[in-house]
Amino acid sequence: MNTTFENKEVYFDNSATTRCSEGVAEIVRQTFLKDYGNPSSLHVKGMEAEQYIRQARERIARTLKVNEKELIFTSGGTEADNLAIIGAAMANRRAGNHLITTRIEHPAVSAPMHFLEEQGFTVTWLDVDKEGQISLKQLQEAVTEETILVSIMYVNNEMGAVEPIAEAARIIKEKNPNTLFHVDAIQAYGKFQIYPKKMGIDMLSVSGHKIHGPKGVGFLYVKERTKLKPILFGGGHQRGMRSGTENVPGIAGLGQAAMEAYENLEQKRQYLYGLREAFVRGLADAEWAHVNGKELYEGTGSEEVNAWALGSGEQAMSMAPHIVSVSFDKVRSEVLLHALEERSIYVSAGSACSSNKPAVSETLKSIGLKKEYLDTTIRFSFSAYNTPEEVEYCIQTLKELVPQLMRFTRY
Amino acid sequence: MNTTFENKEVYFDNSATTRCSEGVAEIVRQTFLKDYGNPSSLHVKGMEAEQYIRQARERIARTLKVNEKELIFTSGGTEADNLAIIGAAMANRRAGNHLITTRIEHPAVSAPMHFLEEQGFTVTWLDVDKEGQISLKQLQEAVTEETILVSIMYVNNEMGAVEPIAEAARIIKEKNPNTLFHVDAIQAYGKFQIYPKKMGIDMLSVSGHKIHGPKGVGFLYVKERTKLKPILFGGGHQRGMRSGTENVPGIAGLGQAAMEAYENLEQKRQYLYGLREAFVRGLADAEWAHVNGKELYEGTGSEEVNAWALGSGEQAMSMAPHIVSVSFDKVRSEVLLHALEERSIYVSAGSACSSNKPAVSETLKSIGLKKEYLDTTIRFSFSAYNTPEEVEYCIQTLKELVPQLMRFTRY
Repeated sequence: MNTTFENKEVYFDNSATTRCSEGVAEIVRQTFLKDYGNPSSLHVKGMEAEQYIRQARERIARTLKVNEKELIFTSGGTEADNLAIIGAAMANRRAGNHLITTRIEHPAVSAPMHFLEEQGFTVTWLDVDKEGQISLKQLQEAVTEETILVSIMYVNNEMGAVEPIAEAARIIKEKNPNTLFHVDAIQAYGKFQIYPKKMGIDMLSVSGHKIHGPKGVGFLYVKERTKLKPILFGGGHQRGMRSGTENVPGIAGLGQAAMEAYENLEQKRQYLYGLREAFVRGLADAEWAHVNGKELYEGTGSEEVNAWALGSGEQAMSMAPHIVSVSFDKVRSEVLLHALEERSIYVSAGSACSSNKPAVSETLKSIGLKKEYLDTTIRFSFSAYNTPEEVEYCIQTLKELVPQLMRFTRY
Repeated sequence: MNTTFENKEVYFDNSATTRCSEGVAEIVRQTFLKDYGNPSSLHVKGMEAEQYIRQARERIARTLKVNEKELIFTSGGTEADNLAIIGAAMANRRAGNHLITTRIEHPAVSAPMHFLEEQGFTVTWLDVDKEGQISLKQLQEAVTEETILVSIMYVNNEMGAVEPIAEAARIIKEKNPNTLFHVDAIQAYGKFQIYPKKMGIDMLSVSGHKIHGPKGVGFLYVKERTKLKPILFGGGHQRGMRSGTENVPGIAGLGQAAMEAYENLEQKRQYLYGLREAFVRGLADAEWAHVNGKELYEGTGSEEVNAWALGSGEQAMSMAPHIVSVSFDKVRSEVLLHALEERSIYVSAGSACSSNKPAVSETLKSIGLKKEYLDTTIRFSFSAYNTPEEVEYCIQTLKELVPQLMRFTRY
């Protein structure tokens, strides 16, 4: 088995970042060398550049069924989350000073929340259960007249839990129609059909590099007439909401990636759920491996996940198709990560979205993971570029490595 | 003459944005398709990505003679200016609430200054003379014990005036050693040797796409131990100063562009001054054309410009090599811009850095330009990719077009 993969990389770290698609690389090259104008220039080279932005807007708007004008391009997911949270808090301060979020958000959401706490806002941090899901009851109780913003992630980046976004929206709006609802969809966009208008989402953050698009670019969907203040000031680009010469190559690449992500989405998602299932089932007989989150694979299909996310289906499946979090007995995640690396399998310990130093994961703590597993947990994350052979190779490698490594442990 | 350029574009809008170099396009492609890891990932693909960032840091640090750790990568010039100004004001609020800048800054500086005025800071706006230069005397009088930050641009983006940066730094620090000095060098970097430590600059903003690098990336030099607060919050990347997955392709492209810009700088600058001189001399006999800013070309060499900028030379030359602002009799800039466009010559009316709508230029008003010229002024901006033949073609085209257009004017 090994020989097949001798010179091949098995990249199972797609929730950290993805390889760009050839189509993305090509459109970026075009805007680097040929259509390199500044969209603010009044001549044809400016208009050519503007045309790439318009095309990207159209392509993205189509995937979400929103208006092109409701998209603000940013430098990535972090800026999109910051703009949504700080921008909404500052713009709606007069209406109240209460914010709600969850304990398992990405730092791009939790850090601006902490910043706002310093600025005098009050934040309620929602708990999650052992499957990583918020309690809709706790959410309902938390929303008050003072609540100006709720931010809940769509798919958790560390374990792949899918939150009940549409139901949350309904509950929030029932309790306080003026409360804005922001969704960090950075791990969900390109994996789920997300329709903000149907689902009651006011703002939605997306990042390019998680969907085979460029790093350094993302967008925030902002529902028309939402009160939002900019967080960067300058030439007044993008209707004053995000100053700075538009990153035309990045935006064009993002539009291309978005379009590609939603071509045959259902087929690709089935494929990813297939990889996920093969992986989880492959580890089922390994008593030293423990998959975190809701158990799947009891005869349900992937349409139901979508139905669930849309709030109309059974809660049978509530895990994303591309993320599997596995806790291992007695083997530190960093040790296993490097052992896998030697076999050309690339994974993450923790979320790989923050610093280089692995810190204790808030998400894993919040789902009540046993203490001994907090630093023995690995995230495997797939993309449509992965194959069943890679999954099989990874399972075999784990079954070879983990028992060996367990013998050397000092626990 | 025309025939030579029939199928060729004469791009004289390089201060709006530049064509990427082939070297930049290549390194970006490499990081898109092959070395696409997330620098926060602990495996080899993360380390490969990190290595591109390290290389870019080294390349840029070398051009400025600063420490690699003193560079913060941003999403571009606007974010770099915002981080410097808002970040420094917020971090040093206890030391005072007075800020100083000039009337001819780019909106990426003036807009955050206006934001800070709303937050209770006081801003002094320095005047400029008809050549676009600040008065060092006025600066000296403006600095007080309450002054926490001065921000002065190196090269004005609309007319190419070079400000006396090193002398300004000396004056500021003499008056108040705690005052921070920020320089927007977006139009200067890659055209001048800039040594922040020698010149007394605490923070310096640079943009990638003005130097044949990618859009959507820039950096802020921040002198060690400068008190600065981040303006984006998240995973704590770049020592907490700029959260968000690093834009590896953009940063690698920026490093490449910086390196290329400073290869044979003096030679390239002489070349640009040559283009500038040919252009200005070519228009000398056109009584309907008026070049704004200091008159050059009286036997001085380009070394003196650098000496001037470094504060040690004569004030003989104080104009950047790549920007020429020309006011035309009776022909609206937008009309001339489109007439030139039909001949494949691309220029800007105003600075092309903000919205698509040409507004009255603060810079041109501040130099006391006659009212009739405020909307008849065109910016021609060169890069090393331009040729003397293009300049000659542009001069001939202007001499053909302007007298024709003057006849149709309704003034």
